[in-house]
Amino acid sequence: MKISSAISDTELKTILTSTHNFVEQKLFPIEMDVIKMAWQDAKPILDNLRSEVKSMGLWCPQIPKTYGGLGLSNKEHGMVSEILGMSPIGHFVFNCQAPDAGNMEILMEFGTDYQKEKYLKPLLEGKITSCFSMTEPENAGSNPLMMNTTAVKEGEYYIINGHKWFTSSADAASFAIVMALTDPDNPEPYRRTSQIIVDTKASGFNQIRNIPIMGDEGSGYFSHAEIKYENCKTPVIGLLGPEGAGYQIAQTRLGPGRIHHCMRWIGICERAFGMMCQYAMQRQTSPGKVLAEKQTIQNWIAESRAEINASKLMVLDAAEKIDMYGQDKARVEISIIKFYVANVLQNVLDRAIQTHGGLGITDDTLLSWWYRHERGARIYDGPDEVHKSRVAKDILKSYKQQR
Amino acid sequence: MKISSAISDTELKTILTSTHNFVEQKLFPIEMDVIKMAWQDAKPILDNLRSEVKSMGLWCPQIPKTYGGLGLSNKEHGMVSEILGMSPIGHFVFNCQAPDAGNMEILMEFGTDYQKEKYLKPLLEGKITSCFSMTEPENAGSNPLMMNTTAVKEGEYYIINGHKWFTSSADAASFAIVMALTDPDNPEPYRRTSQIIVDTKASGFNQIRNIPIMGDEGSGYFSHAEIKYENCKTPVIGLLGPEGAGYQIAQTRLGPGRIHHCMRWIGICERAFGMMCQYAMQRQTSPGKVLAEKQTIQNWIAESRAEINASKLMVLDAAEKIDMYGQDKARVEISIIKFYVANVLQNVLDRAIQTHGGLGITDDTLLSWWYRHERGARIYDGPDEVHKSRVAKDILKSYKQQR
Amino acid sequence: MKISSAISDTELKTILTSTHNFVEQKLFPIEMDVIKMAWQDAKPILDNLRSEVKSMGLWCPQIPKTYGGLGLSNKEHGMVSEILGMSPIGHFVFNCQAPDAGNMEILMEFGTDYQKEKYLKPLLEGKITSCFSMTEPENAGSNPLMMNTTAVKEGEYYIINGHKWFTSSADAASFAIVMALTDPDNPEPYRRTSQIIVDTKASGFNQIRNIPIMGDEGSGYFSHAEIKYENCKTPVIGLLGPEGAGYQIAQTRLGPGRIHHCMRWIGICERAFGMMCQYAMQRQTSPGKVLAEKQTIQNWIAESRAEINASKLMVLDAAEKIDMYGQDKARVEISIIKFYVANVLQNVLDRAIQTHGGLGITDDTLLSWWYRHERGARIYDGPDEVHKSRVAKDILKSYKQQR
Amino acid sequence: MKISSAISDTELKTILTSTHNFVEQKLFPIEMDVIKMAWQDAKPILDNLRSEVKSMGLWCPQIPKTYGGLGLSNKEHGMVSEILGMSPIGHFVFNCQAPDAGNMEILMEFGTDYQKEKYLKPLLEGKITSCFSMTEPENAGSNPLMMNTTAVKEGEYYIINGHKWFTSSADAASFAIVMALTDPDNPEPYRRTSQIIVDTKASGFNQIRNIPIMGDEGSGYFSHAEIKYENCKTPVIGLLGPEGAGYQIAQTRLGPGRIHHCMRWIGICERAFGMMCQYAMQRQTSPGKVLAEKQTIQNWIAESRAEINASKLMVLDAAEKIDMYGQDKARVEISIIKFYVANVLQNVLDRAIQTHGGLGITDDTLLSWWYRHERGARIYDGPDEVHKSRVAKDILKSYKQQR
Repeated sequence: MKISSAISDTELKTILTSTHNFVEQKLFPIEMDVIKMAWQDAKPILDNLRSEVKSMGLWCPQIPKTYGGLGLSNKEHGMVSEILGMSPIGHFVFNCQAPDAGNMEILMEFGTDYQKEKYLKPLLEGKITSCFSMTEPENAGSNPLMMNTTAVKEGEYYIINGHKWFTSSADAASFAIVMALTDPDNPEPYRRTSQIIVDTKASGFNQIRNIPIMGDEGSGYFSHAEIKYENCKTPVIGLLGPEGAGYQIAQTRLGPGRIHHCMRWIGICERAFGMMCQYAMQRQTSPGKVLAEKQTIQNWIAESRAEINASKLMVLDAAEKIDMYGQDKARVEISIIKFYVANVLQNVLDRAIQTHGGLGITDDTLLSWWYRHERGARIYDGPDEVHKSRVAKDILKSYKQQR
Repeated sequence: MKISSAISDTELKTILTSTHNFVEQKLFPIEMDVIKMAWQDAKPILDNLRSEVKSMGLWCPQIPKTYGGLGLSNKEHGMVSEILGMSPIGHFVFNCQAPDAGNMEILMEFGTDYQKEKYLKPLLEGKITSCFSMTEPENAGSNPLMMNTTAVKEGEYYIINGHKWFTSSADAASFAIVMALTDPDNPEPYRRTSQIIVDTKASGFNQIRNIPIMGDEGSGYFSHAEIKYENCKTPVIGLLGPEGAGYQIAQTRLGPGRIHHCMRWIGICERAFGMMCQYAMQRQTSPGKVLAEKQTIQNWIAESRAEINASKLMVLDAAEKIDMYGQDKARVEISIIKFYVANVLQNVLDRAIQTHGGLGITDDTLLSWWYRHERGARIYDGPDEVHKSRVAKDILKSYKQQR
Repeated sequence: MKISSAISDTELKTILTSTHNFVEQKLFPIEMDVIKMAWQDAKPILDNLRSEVKSMGLWCPQIPKTYGGLGLSNKEHGMVSEILGMSPIGHFVFNCQAPDAGNMEILMEFGTDYQKEKYLKPLLEGKITSCFSMTEPENAGSNPLMMNTTAVKEGEYYIINGHKWFTSSADAASFAIVMALTDPDNPEPYRRTSQIIVDTKASGFNQIRNIPIMGDEGSGYFSHAEIKYENCKTPVIGLLGPEGAGYQIAQTRLGPGRIHHCMRWIGICERAFGMMCQYAMQRQTSPGKVLAEKQTIQNWIAESRAEINASKLMVLDAAEKIDMYGQDKARVEISIIKFYVANVLQNVLDRAIQTHGGLGITDDTLLSWWYRHERGARIYDGPDEVHKSRVAKDILKSYKQQR
Repeated sequence: MKISSAISDTELKTILTSTHNFVEQKLFPIEMDVIKMAWQDAKPILDNLRSEVKSMGLWCPQIPKTYGGLGLSNKEHGMVSEILGMSPIGHFVFNCQAPDAGNMEILMEFGTDYQKEKYLKPLLEGKITSCFSMTEPENAGSNPLMMNTTAVKEGEYYIINGHKWFTSSADAASFAIVMALTDPDNPEPYRRTSQIIVDTKASGFNQIRNIPIMGDEGSGYFSHAEIKYENCKTPVIGLLGPEGAGYQIAQTRLGPGRIHHCMRWIGICERAFGMMCQYAMQRQTSPGKVLAEKQTIQNWIAESRAEINASKLMVLDAAEKIDMYGQDKARVEISIIKFYVANVLQNVLDRAIQTHGGLGITDDTLLSWWYRHERGARIYDGPDEVHKSRVAKDILKSYKQQR
């Protein structure tokens, strides 16, 4: 949480403009190729771009200045994040990509000196990447109390056993932060789990596969792994915060993480919206007549613009509330943007594809990539339905007395 | 247009709190009775309340201080307007109701001294009310160029002939501002009409009926008249601005008028939302179980909250743009809120009614009144479809060159 | 239930054509006036029309020939019902209106000779009308087990106490069929209530008011009463079927009753659809251009046509299933049409109103009458939400074993 | 068009049951593997299955008995097609897959003896497959008059030049039926094109690539090619019907082709619906509680069931109209099902995916495959928007006189 901003309005404006120019000039021309490459081929290209970003002073926008970042508030970073979201490689190139950004945040807040030196430092420098290993195939991800993975302490080590999936980017990661039961019988259910840093090279850390998602297995950073922890032995010094604090630490990630995703989605929306408008002006439906003259297309443009504007104002409003009052006070707003913007994203992409006709379903534009890769937006970090129930229950509390 | 505000943040806060308290304590208890009364019975009750508002210093929030109002900017008045909108009699009691508010605005900007003294002054004081006579049954209201009513100058008089409807509040009005063709053959179509003040007692001003709208004929201020102008003779000094400026003057009303409606609708939404939540907590579906536990109701609460929040942020954003840059620069935003909020209003009312079950369709709550009286929201001041097309066409202009 | 039809295809065709002609020629020209009249003024007009229908041999289409009706199956009557639904006075004029049609059905199946002679005969002849008194303001209508009204036997009488509303048409009714608890402590909850015929002139049958619904209090047949039963004394011979059979008898009404409503709604849809198309072809948006050229209007026409076709096929399919296998076997289909068609009705009316612009919200067309009076369609006879849950639970039963 | 059916109800029932059993027992277990294979690996497996189908007497259900098929009417084949649609390999295995089925139809109706012997016979026997080459990247597919590909007659040959894409299954095809301008200046625009059979091995038939669609390039039958016809020389005896009849012949495919797609989509819907129900009953959201208890899931199940039922009844109704009156008379119905069912398909798949949570977006179930591969359903064979306009225009014709 950053109560006041480290930068001036003018500085922010400069950052936004430079970021926008960079994304447009350096990322747009190559992004389509990069996302189709194997990770080993994409990595050097992305590393070069990262060097440029560093040299331009735009590196790690979300990280406090003391840690070498730009020190932006949630709201300010939200604005940057929207711009980066316009390209599928934007966040990675600026080193504010999920899940690393969340891991950096946790490490800054809960990491020991040892952990900061060993894991946080190279992460911040962009020398390594990481992953976060929580969701289990056998348990509903929306219920944080349902978990089977255990970490049993034996001397200086935890022995971890369990089955995880959607451990995004594990394929390229140097370490994972693993959620596991350390005190499964604690009468207080939210004290049962801990977060433990595990080297991906540790014995018993068995990556089963990269899960093919909507036609893409992916690789490296662009992948989602299934992992079996089979008597995986990892030193106790990897424990984040006190034992039993797993759930509480996980909460830290959520608010800013959702702002991050929502603004990224808005970036995608803006890009798709621009593509839709441009194509509508170009594509002839009969000689001399273009798609843009069709009232249905006009409806889609107006509705999309309304929904994107609404999304942006609500996300920045939520980010400001986090900045000012902390994420607990912004709980309702955070849940609202999570489901609202995820649906706007799907709507806007769907309309852009429909506008493009046959071209829209080919992989010749980015639209189909996002259509496939962001169908998950309504599911990950809590499905729509869970967020809606939570919002309602929170709101209804203030009506209880009138029963 | 008010570039900077006449009041401080603290003053605004006080105004909002006082307004809220007044609406809740003085209007909520009687509003249901008042809207069912004949106008002659409602009038004295409303006049008493108006006196109270004056004595509390809350009168005419939207009017500049020099004219005796509070001098609020569009954004600030928007916030007041939301609160007033929670009651169907809110705006009238504070003397910022349509169509009078729009007429005051026109008179302040284009009125002669004579017109200001004779018409504006008593309007501002709340001694009279007025109406605006533009829409014609034979012509699509969405096309300002289609108009049959003519005003032919004969010496010191205009002779007006034409057929108008949806001349809201004519039944109680002292004067009408009439749109009529004064130069029907002008090659420039937007210079063909003028706005002319006409006394409702003038000969030839024939009120045919109050049009029954969704089951209510209404009366007095709460009605929508059909008028026949049959050789209606009215002095030329009633001409507003120069001859031929009818269309341009009409534009003046639109931006602030839409902010006004949108914020009023948001007030209705907030009230209906509160009723929905409260009823959901009270109504048992089986012993010990209430509606609020149903996930569908929870979905409606969350979706309504999202949509109302989005509406509010977008309307205040548009109001701020008008305040800062003028309504022409905020054209897209104004059209967006017009259709977006009108639909949110309909959704929220529909969900609130459905939550109330049988009770929802009775006239025992305000919900059915709004459901009926605000179905027009998606039609008046430009139907959704027209606004959507305009938004799209405006946006697409910046894509033209890429064709 | 009528397993096989009493009439040939040719006879059916003749009935449908005659009915269509009659509705168009005799009802369309006067319906708008009739629904605005007080009941005492409307009644003689309607009675004349009823005589005509009798003399044409179209009376009581849903009633078996042995009882003097046309003997149509549910499917066949559904087709007639669609035509009658095109006019708000159609069903009444053919004596197949709710709630009388349901009461006739119950009396035919469960009535004693005495009850048939005293109540059914004049109902069938159209000499009296009746009402059904079940829903209570204090209890959720969707839960048949929540009921407070009691009927305590004292000698040859029941003493009824309770509070009912939405007792439709009570204002004109000669008798009511009342649902009341006769055995409130029966361990089997569905055996607690009975249905008892009560004369509306009985002492203690106190009609509090006609509930104003969406702006209309109505009167006579066209009204929905609130009733207080205050020590209402009624002879035991009015008991329908055995004591405790109230719930089971109520079930009898449901299937055919829902077919009835659904087909009536489809009739309304067809009428509104026709009005929408016709207005779209007439209304100019600019000289020489009509609404029908707008793609949005075209979308509404196509979507409405699709939804109405779907509704009709599904309702007739459900009716056929009732005819062939009984309503229990058609439970899922009946619930599906109840919520599906009620929503189509609301959609089609909404689009027709929006197409009509300002005219659509006036009472100058039937659209606003239906918009107001059929908002209840998604609520009465079980709200959408209850039917959806029931459908799902029924379907999910066949998946249980795979758990 | 088949006015009366060649088979009895009992025969049909047997065909449906056998088909269902075969699909469930032989295709369900291997389909996931087959669709991920390269065509050369999948082909032998599919060919074995095809032999089984032949030996069971279920081969070519849509083909008249005189040509060796089952002789089913459009409605009957619709029922078979639904069952086949439940598996992505169903239609291919029964030799009624697009685009071959359409090509067979054209060849039966317009083919010369030579063409039937050379192309139709091996198609019917399943020895070869084919493709249909119409859509061009440079022209809106929805406008059949926009076409650049030309076929210029030189002696006994046509020289074809043009650029096509979405030439589905070209990768495995022995021949293509190509739409090309043979008389580009004909004043009657619908007489400008011809359909010409071209061997895919012909010189100048240059397959540029299989277009990657939503992440899948595919191969063989499961692919969509981009083709350049570069002075492609093909004998005039390949001309289908008279020169200039290209458009008219294309119409022949459309009606039955849309029934085919719609019923296939309904098969997909049924499969996805079953998966959704089954998963909802299995997946625990907390110990002892399953997804199926959530009202939102229940809503989806009920709404999906309603929409699938509506789809099925409408498609079979349209098929029956084609069988009885020809496809021209069923034009409105055909267009309605095309857009209605395509949207139901997308809704049902979306809900099934959302119900499956994370699993739904993986390629571990068929849902994601269909989600990706059927996004095109709203686009190919005429986008929703074009069909809606056509439906409306057709309907509005009967309202014209009232203008």
